[in-house]
Amino acid sequence: MSERSERSERSERSERSGRSELRGRAAELDSADELAGLRERFVLDDVVYLDGNSLGALPANVPGRVEDVVRRQWGELRIRSWDESGWWTAPERIGDRIAPLVGAAPGQIVVGDSTSVNVFKAVVGAVRLAGEGRDEILVDATTFPTDGYIAQSAARLTGCELRPLDPADVPAALGPRTAAVLLNHVDYRTGRLHDLPSLTSAIHAAGALAVWDLCHSAGALPVDLDAHGVDLAVGCTYKYLNGGPGSPAYLYVREELQSRFDSPLPGWNSHTDPFGMSPAYEPAPGALRGRVGTPDILSMLALEAALEVWDGISIESVRTKSLALTDFFLQCVSAYVPEGRVESVTPSAHTERGSQVALRCPDAGEVMKRLIERDVVGDFRHPDVLRFGFTPLYVGFADVERAARVLGEEIVL
Amino acid sequence: MSERSERSERSERSERSGRSELRGRAAELDSADELAGLRERFVLDDVVYLDGNSLGALPANVPGRVEDVVRRQWGELRIRSWDESGWWTAPERIGDRIAPLVGAAPGQIVVGDSTSVNVFKAVVGAVRLAGEGRDEILVDATTFPTDGYIAQSAARLTGCELRPLDPADVPAALGPRTAAVLLNHVDYRTGRLHDLPSLTSAIHAAGALAVWDLCHSAGALPVDLDAHGVDLAVGCTYKYLNGGPGSPAYLYVREELQSRFDSPLPGWNSHTDPFGMSPAYEPAPGALRGRVGTPDILSMLALEAALEVWDGISIESVRTKSLALTDFFLQCVSAYVPEGRVESVTPSAHTERGSQVALRCPDAGEVMKRLIERDVVGDFRHPDVLRFGFTPLYVGFADVERAARVLGEEIVL
Repeated sequence: MSERSERSERSERSERSGRSELRGRAAELDSADELAGLRERFVLDDVVYLDGNSLGALPANVPGRVEDVVRRQWGELRIRSWDESGWWTAPERIGDRIAPLVGAAPGQIVVGDSTSVNVFKAVVGAVRLAGEGRDEILVDATTFPTDGYIAQSAARLTGCELRPLDPADVPAALGPRTAAVLLNHVDYRTGRLHDLPSLTSAIHAAGALAVWDLCHSAGALPVDLDAHGVDLAVGCTYKYLNGGPGSPAYLYVREELQSRFDSPLPGWNSHTDPFGMSPAYEPAPGALRGRVGTPDILSMLALEAALEVWDGISIESVRTKSLALTDFFLQCVSAYVPEGRVESVTPSAHTERGSQVALRCPDAGEVMKRLIERDVVGDFRHPDVLRFGFTPLYVGFADVERAARVLGEEIVL
Repeated sequence: MSERSERSERSERSERSGRSELRGRAAELDSADELAGLRERFVLDDVVYLDGNSLGALPANVPGRVEDVVRRQWGELRIRSWDESGWWTAPERIGDRIAPLVGAAPGQIVVGDSTSVNVFKAVVGAVRLAGEGRDEILVDATTFPTDGYIAQSAARLTGCELRPLDPADVPAALGPRTAAVLLNHVDYRTGRLHDLPSLTSAIHAAGALAVWDLCHSAGALPVDLDAHGVDLAVGCTYKYLNGGPGSPAYLYVREELQSRFDSPLPGWNSHTDPFGMSPAYEPAPGALRGRVGTPDILSMLALEAALEVWDGISIESVRTKSLALTDFFLQCVSAYVPEGRVESVTPSAHTERGSQVALRCPDAGEVMKRLIERDVVGDFRHPDVLRFGFTPLYVGFADVERAARVLGEEIVL
């Protein structure tokens, strides 16, 4: 046997033993996982679905609920359902269901419209709450672009200047002109978790309002909006909250601010007496003020059913598992992927990590296609990022090991 | 036999004969009705449903489609459906499906968001299109209130003055300061049809832009947006288009204006390269510019299925039947309801009548409750209006006779 093939055999043996060790570890972690049984609350085949941070999997109770909404509530009761099936109050009722997941007391969240539309309400609303003399909006330049586009429009319409900047530079940039700061809790690309408590507190110290976008954190980790005094927040519901494609977003307005919250979209649903049909606008009290037009009932009630998945689950236990999943994924990636082939752009510190791992890799687009062909579903983010989201409700440790192993196999081709 | 009872017997005989005459006439009209068979495309029991101008009945093909969207497209294909199930392009595809119903060539309508949100895009967009020096918005003071509330917000954010006025006074109020005029095609309460061609043309003669709200006309009568040079239009899809509760609304931007249309809600879905995730906003060409955030797929694809009901139907034939239905209803009401008990506030001229009849009656709220108990479903509009909507796709002449007869019986109690 040549020296070369001896070396290769040794390396193969060590690879096999590393693999079996990681598999064993995955099995141990799965059997100790108190959330493991929750996967049954979802419709999932044998795929390793690591794209729940783009579109959450289908909760098993949703199809039946939607069928009832369509056939009975719409088809049989028709307009009576606005009262009898609770359609009219769905935005605030479902808001209250999301509230505990983001650390909010009831009465501060309404569901409806897209995230972009809610960013608009929140940023214009924050500028108005900040009052005269404050004419600058700071926005995370690294964030999902829609936040920046909408903040630009809000700035233009309210006569403010928009300053895009790195979240790390926010404290230094705050000043007497700052009206509002719009930040993403977890960066959609890198998975970086920003320090919401300390940034919010710096923003408040400058007399400005903090608006947080929770799209990539709600349902994956504790947010504690009330505890940290966040002023306004928005988020989508189709990622970690599994509400379905394009399910409605939500708006949080801190209770103390509600009576002064002045929405730029004062539709009839936010009127204090919507069926009075008065030509004079008079805003409803409380969170209802964030409503606009007629709610999209089918999407909204699918979301309501999806939120039942959370019954009896604490967001803290979800966070614990999420960190264990991403830790284990990084460990498996080191073991399976040839060194230098990928570079993690997700912070290694737990305090800075959301529920995803983003790996930079020059041919990420092609690699992701091959992974998907092998039933390991993550997504590709332009130009060179492999993004893997970990939804603790239905992703287990064996899934993680398998994903990293398939990645190791496909990336060397 | 006393004179009194003789008179009463005579009157009863004449009533019976009037009733049997109207029933006979209804049967004739139904048997000559070329749209009569369409009722089978809907799920309807024995009720006389005259509230399709609030919430259209359930089309029979919708439940199966929604089930497929939920179970297969979301549950099995998951994120692949954004491409493979055509989710991503749904807003413009469904817009093109609505287009022929409102007389628009393809490429000018996108579906998404609520009517209120679309009114905001349209009014701010119109003010921007009108250009410098025009700082006045006229709005129909008699319209559905959300239009006025949102127009007020648009005026405030663009530095315009809002002038609410009766549509009849619009021509005289137009001037060099007028930027945009927001009008409702059919008044939600009285059912009055406004003269879209001549009002649009007066608005254009003054150099302003015409924004029409089609909520109560689209699907009930020809609108001919392109032919009349309407600039922008919005409408809901849950009334005569039967899209389901809170189904998404739409925005029409006339082709020649699209390249200059400057949306106040420039979400990432309206970017020319949404997945480029660029921090710089660059609007997409064409109608896509009216998109904002992620579309609410369940509600949107239910609407798409609902629109298939229109295959092979011309809006002109719908209008012909609609007028015949409302004429016949008014005739039956005169015959069955004691004189002076109700007063129609819907114009009697065909050119001024939408697809509804509104009857003023002091105890309208109580009367409507009794009608609904007897399976004649209209709605009550504050403070004293009985509103009956006629959807020619599923309402027939026997329904009309029955509704008027039950009204006659209940109103004298």
